[in-house]
Amino acid sequence: MRTTEHWFPGRLTEMPAGECRDLMGSTSVGRVAFVDEDGPVVLPVNYVLDGDTVLFRTSPANTIARHLDSATVAFEVDEFDDYTQSGWSVVVRGTASFVPADELASDERSLPFPWADGVRTLVVRVTPFSVSGRRLLPG
Amino acid sequence: MRTTEHWFPGRLTEMPAGECRDLMGSTSVGRVAFVDEDGPVVLPVNYVLDGDTVLFRTSPANTIARHLDSATVAFEVDEFDDYTQSGWSVVVRGTASFVPADELASDERSLPFPWADGVRTLVVRVTPFSVSGRRLLPG
Repeated sequence: MRTTEHWFPGRLTEMPAGECRDLMGSTSVGRVAFVDEDGPVVLPVNYVLDGDTVLFRTSPANTIARHLDSATVAFEVDEFDDYTQSGWSVVVRGTASFVPADELASDERSLPFPWADGVRTLVVRVTPFSVSGRRLLPG
Repeated sequence: MRTTEHWFPGRLTEMPAGECRDLMGSTSVGRVAFVDEDGPVVLPVNYVLDGDTVLFRTSPANTIARHLDSATVAFEVDEFDDYTQSGWSVVVRGTASFVPADELASDERSLPFPWADGVRTLVVRVTPFSVSGRRLLPG
């Protein structure tokens, strides 16, 4: 017998915008989805919120940078609990743009802090056109 | 002072294919990225591995179903630890296809078990054209 068979299915509910925003502010790793020449791709990044927008850093030389300026992207954060088979996810859909150096706050603390090493001098802002979230309540 | 300032940046390394596969077999929630009329979108799903392919279930009526048949998709799994600021991610890029009912194993246990309720009778298979993984070692 699978352990999953002990459980009733969880109930999936839409979350209000305020709850989506609060949850997005509670984590520091999200996933950006964009399209390159081979189709959609999704990569984890460290991020911070700046008002209603999402900021993350990347290297000016990498594949994200080549495909993100003025591109439509999705940004997803989630948390799931294997034991209770519950959790939540928030998906932001929006437009990515490179933040000019002179617009960056002089206070480094307001910028995303990448966990990984490497040159990540390019700051990307995702300006949402939609935000949606779902919560999966335990069954 | 931010807690993050205590840390040296972690080291990002590529993972070999075998390690990617082992890690993909260790979790049950992944994220599928696809493109709809508004651009890329990414949604969490429960999944299982079937050989080198990824299987997940969805509702025949929803937005995933409308945009996935024969579509190019990305499928991502990851695990990160906030405290050590380390973790791993695996990204599968491939082609999605609907699995005909008569090809489904009669043994339900070999199918992905969705945590959420709802009618999820459509089984989607992602056949990879590339698999890549990265591990972020603690700094």
